[in-house]
Amino acid sequence: MVERLTIRTSGQGLHEITDEVAEVVAKSATASGLCTVFVQHTSASLIIQENADPSARRDLESWLNRLVKEGDAIYTHKEEGPDDMPSHIKSALTATSLAIPIVNGRLALGRWQGIYLWEHRRRGHERSVVVHVG
Amino acid sequence: MVERLTIRTSGQGLHEITDEVAEVVAKSATASGLCTVFVQHTSASLIIQENADPSARRDLESWLNRLVKEGDAIYTHKEEGPDDMPSHIKSALTATSLAIPIVNGRLALGRWQGIYLWEHRRRGHERSVVVHVG
Amino acid sequence: MVERLTIRTSGQGLHEITDEVAEVVAKSATASGLCTVFVQHTSASLIIQENADPSARRDLESWLNRLVKEGDAIYTHKEEGPDDMPSHIKSALTATSLAIPIVNGRLALGRWQGIYLWEHRRRGHERSVVVHVG
Repeated sequence: MVERLTIRTSGQGLHEITDEVAEVVAKSATASGLCTVFVQHTSASLIIQENADPSARRDLESWLNRLVKEGDAIYTHKEEGPDDMPSHIKSALTATSLAIPIVNGRLALGRWQGIYLWEHRRRGHERSVVVHVG
Repeated sequence: MVERLTIRTSGQGLHEITDEVAEVVAKSATASGLCTVFVQHTSASLIIQENADPSARRDLESWLNRLVKEGDAIYTHKEEGPDDMPSHIKSALTATSLAIPIVNGRLALGRWQGIYLWEHRRRGHERSVVVHVG
Repeated sequence: MVERLTIRTSGQGLHEITDEVAEVVAKSATASGLCTVFVQHTSASLIIQENADPSARRDLESWLNRLVKEGDAIYTHKEEGPDDMPSHIKSALTATSLAIPIVNGRLALGRWQGIYLWEHRRRGHERSVVVHVG
């Protein structure tokens, strides 16, 4: 079973999609299997991170923004704005696809794990995420 | 087939789990398929690295420790210790899930590839790794 | 279905393999499923990046070359040349496996996404990539 989700982000940052993915798994009625999440963009990515304390996600974002700066003199690809090339680099350093086992009909996430779509562009976008359950 | 492994790490570093994963594949008696390894934590991650010379793994760790420093003034998430926020960042930069094809009943790893659980916390932990074979 | 591709790279950089992977998917005649791509090396990796403007890929490479320098005094693993240890680190920061859903018999890549084998060694190599379709 494959389902496409449209996720509207509100700007740069981690946007939780655990519930949306879990819903696809529930609908598939798969007791035991594998759920694969795939983002169809190169300026947004996927990440599994701590879902408890939001300060961990904020620090992660600050740290990555400092590592992958806007306006770096090394960039030649600039036509789509100062946040475009950093977005591609951040995507390269994180994940385009995630695979999560399904056990007893549920995503086998750890207690503190959430699935996030990471918007790397400054502005919000409509992002396409494809979920495969097999 | 899904099986949960409990891996006891002895502190920060790469802990090889190739044999444990291969054993699940062997038990499943799958001739051709896909093995997915998933770690249920956000302060440990998975990586496929050179299994020959341990100096490559040590250098990798030293390099990442220098990139993702403890005590960075950017961190606000500090209650769980100085090694907690770096652990989340290191996890974000490496993998939470790995997928390895199975060919002729065996993991299709390259000659020099081993599967490692990367403990990012200073102290050893009991880590849950879920292995799916399909 | 599992198929091994041999990809000859011509030196450091991103080498597109979208067509080769798509051909395996077409041959498998899978209408709906999952395609997993796995590289059997620890000094080359996989990445999904923008396939339109080559400047994005060049900038990505320049940026990563600056982050992961040759000749870093931290390296002890040097026997295989100055580009060896950086290759392992770059592989660790990018992907060894990628999973892409198959929808209507085709890879569900976004409009601007291409699949690339990233050669991290200076010289070209014959690289083994295993493609699983299920």
